[in-house]
Amino acid sequence: MQKIGIIDLGSNTTRLIVMAYEPERCFRLVDEVSEVVRLAEGVGATGRLQPKPIRRAVVALSMFETLCRRTGVDHVIAVGTSAIREAENQHEFWDALRAETTLDLRIISAQEEAFYGFVGTANALGLRNGFTFDTGGGSTQVVAVRNGQPTETYSVQAGVVRFTERYVSSDPISKRDLRNLRQAAQESFAGLTWLQAHPDYRLAGMGGTIRTLARIDQKQRQYPLDRVHGYQLSREALSNIIEVLSRSNRREREQIPGLKTDRTDVTLAGAIIIEQLMTCGRFESLTVSGQGVREGLFYAHFLQGIEPPLLDNPRTFSIKNLARLSNYEEAHCDKVGSLSQSLFDQLAPLHGYGAWERELLGYAAIIHDIGVAVGYYDHHKHSEYLVQNGTLLGFTHREIAILGALVRNHRKGQADLSPYAQIFAADDSQRIARLSSLLRIAEYLERSKSQVVRAVRVELGESIRIVVEADGDASVGIWDANRRTGLFRKAFERDVEIVQG
Amino acid sequence: MQKIGIIDLGSNTTRLIVMAYEPERCFRLVDEVSEVVRLAEGVGATGRLQPKPIRRAVVALSMFETLCRRTGVDHVIAVGTSAIREAENQHEFWDALRAETTLDLRIISAQEEAFYGFVGTANALGLRNGFTFDTGGGSTQVVAVRNGQPTETYSVQAGVVRFTERYVSSDPISKRDLRNLRQAAQESFAGLTWLQAHPDYRLAGMGGTIRTLARIDQKQRQYPLDRVHGYQLSREALSNIIEVLSRSNRREREQIPGLKTDRTDVTLAGAIIIEQLMTCGRFESLTVSGQGVREGLFYAHFLQGIEPPLLDNPRTFSIKNLARLSNYEEAHCDKVGSLSQSLFDQLAPLHGYGAWERELLGYAAIIHDIGVAVGYYDHHKHSEYLVQNGTLLGFTHREIAILGALVRNHRKGQADLSPYAQIFAADDSQRIARLSSLLRIAEYLERSKSQVVRAVRVELGESIRIVVEADGDASVGIWDANRRTGLFRKAFERDVEIVQG
Repeated sequence: MQKIGIIDLGSNTTRLIVMAYEPERCFRLVDEVSEVVRLAEGVGATGRLQPKPIRRAVVALSMFETLCRRTGVDHVIAVGTSAIREAENQHEFWDALRAETTLDLRIISAQEEAFYGFVGTANALGLRNGFTFDTGGGSTQVVAVRNGQPTETYSVQAGVVRFTERYVSSDPISKRDLRNLRQAAQESFAGLTWLQAHPDYRLAGMGGTIRTLARIDQKQRQYPLDRVHGYQLSREALSNIIEVLSRSNRREREQIPGLKTDRTDVTLAGAIIIEQLMTCGRFESLTVSGQGVREGLFYAHFLQGIEPPLLDNPRTFSIKNLARLSNYEEAHCDKVGSLSQSLFDQLAPLHGYGAWERELLGYAAIIHDIGVAVGYYDHHKHSEYLVQNGTLLGFTHREIAILGALVRNHRKGQADLSPYAQIFAADDSQRIARLSSLLRIAEYLERSKSQVVRAVRVELGESIRIVVEADGDASVGIWDANRRTGLFRKAFERDVEIVQG
Repeated sequence: MQKIGIIDLGSNTTRLIVMAYEPERCFRLVDEVSEVVRLAEGVGATGRLQPKPIRRAVVALSMFETLCRRTGVDHVIAVGTSAIREAENQHEFWDALRAETTLDLRIISAQEEAFYGFVGTANALGLRNGFTFDTGGGSTQVVAVRNGQPTETYSVQAGVVRFTERYVSSDPISKRDLRNLRQAAQESFAGLTWLQAHPDYRLAGMGGTIRTLARIDQKQRQYPLDRVHGYQLSREALSNIIEVLSRSNRREREQIPGLKTDRTDVTLAGAIIIEQLMTCGRFESLTVSGQGVREGLFYAHFLQGIEPPLLDNPRTFSIKNLARLSNYEEAHCDKVGSLSQSLFDQLAPLHGYGAWERELLGYAAIIHDIGVAVGYYDHHKHSEYLVQNGTLLGFTHREIAILGALVRNHRKGQADLSPYAQIFAADDSQRIARLSSLLRIAEYLERSKSQVVRAVRVELGESIRIVVEADGDASVGIWDANRRTGLFRKAFERDVEIVQG
């Protein structure tokens, strides 16, 4: 695997991510360092970068460079955004940077910043139609996406550091400051005529502020999954958080679960900016993206030559990525997938499910064994853990919880779904039982991992017969699969027998 | 990595394990298939292997062979034990086997079986003095171990299938059957004069029966760790389980949590055999080994030339094994280890801990980042999960829970220890807080992963000063470590300041 470091010097934070990857095949985030250097501090008032923030930024960048050198990073891409872009005294920053590092930092335009943010988010969420936005320290970028292409881009100097410095002069914020802050945010998006909520067009947000807001909301509702990527933040939840933040002083804010110390001062301004963006387009909710500009830069490198650098199918890609990183047995998993989907198709009259469930079943087959990388015993439990905590792109949290339960059930037992009640739909319990009962039969038919079973033929009746066609002796698998039909019988309320064809 | 398959045809179960490994360096169990073929069925009464059990065994072995061939196994070692060893009609088994497979199965003597069981268990538990025993379907092997050498070996035809067939004729078992069973078990060990409980000599058991008994006991006490390897099973707990098993019929036994269906009939006989073994040597508890003959055969292959094939230090080996399998950054982890142990040594007047804590701290440093293999974000949580669920050799459960908490705390927060209350000692909470506060300071001093910090000098006083000696600019690490001293201050009840030397 190669290693690339991506550095993004923003107005509030500067971050390094290190990706290990094989081009177009698989990748994994292996390191991240983030420093709140507040490079934009004072820029709003003076138009100039201040000596202390410049110093903090250079120290952080120098540390990133050392880290990359010492951990075998092959290549570094470093970009700077809004704060440097607009400063009158850029040269002072360049002089300091060049004196201490050899980093080749490139200032990207607001347009480019928006583009890479779109690339990161569109890949991470599988978004092909909708809007992405990125609220950073110095500015907010909004992009309209149609059929996977960015069609409109908007950048405005509405950033969390900038707005906090300009509008927040009291603690807790005064009514007057709040009014001015909100008005400024509202005016920032006044010209955005193309931003309109639409059933088929999602709004997706990236950046530290939106992740922080999601975390606060999750803590409040004791959310069962420990991931913000893909989380749905409602307009109502956002209003509640704004309400709390606007009547708390700093000490009180420090007590808010999910709000980190270095975000206590700037999150209110960020929340108001996002609130006004949602108001402008009349959105009732937004999807949180855990990936943004840095990952966008990575995808552009990873998918060289593809324009825009979007994965064909982020869902399929990320499932295979997870499987490949765990050295999965491809022929075995493919066979389990084809057998379980064949059972699914032939049992359609009984379950009535469609393409969505079929797709999930196929994904579960690919990754059912990945937990072996943790430990063989109880690997079905480890597979569930890896699904819930690994990088999956373009899946809703409900889908992730379903996938987790399917791999958990692939060998034996039945996952306890009660912790995820607030994520599941009412009939998901039955859906999971049925799908995993098929996965389990396929898994045991493929017990010898020899792909000896060519096909399965389902005979529907009072009781179900599954006729196995094999290229060789499949007797052990058939015998074993017959011992694992308990879940099937429970889930479909039919008897079942698996026989040699 | 190479792959080896080890097949063990026992009297009750036949099992295949597949290990991926680099000789003497690292290994991982990647596959296991187990079939309850009950090869010994009927041997007790007739002295002959019966056709049906032979058939079941050959079908299973043939399936194992296919699996090995289809999943890229380079080499297969297959052994048979008690049931075949003693049968008059071995040739019938050989004929059937050769007709359907090309497996080169070797019958090992009771002596060899005991030896490989000792090797597996001694490596798995780090046992250098004590006794190992293996209760299988047809026989029980006991080995005395002194300074890592097997000094006495005893094999007796007390096996769970054999004894069940011979002594259990009623359901639930009748008083008379129970008495006969117990007496036979007692007589089996009557000659074992060298088996004597001793404070420095542990009793360690392997095999499916002992694992099953451990699981039943764990379920009863809602044990917080999901691992049986290394579990302490008390004489008292064993008596309670025997009590329950001996008054339950099969249907009732099927409801006992932890008792699998294919073990419902034979576990009572196994429990009585183990009870009598403990009585014979006056042991109050035993340690469960998750590894046995198969793993012993693996170690003999893995450590070729070393006799007996014991790892130098199973604890260190398995910690490094876990780290290597997760592609850890060795230079970084070594530095975090040496810095945290240096802090530990210099702070000895404050904490008063000894070699044991120092060793655990060193292990935690090596594996603190392994969770990155699951996902970078929250990797400290994933590291804890991998510690709790991975293969660690020679650690008690308490040590594993401590290691888990240390890696969990290495970046931020403080692990909730309450779920593990029944495992921890009363002062472990403070122990964990103190050790992990050192780990955290070392981690942040090594934030740039550049090993720039050469040494730390601790100045003890009302408040603590940590003076950092660096080969270069360590300012970012020092600044950052100073931000992470909250846990230290809480755990040591002293103020602390980290300064450049």
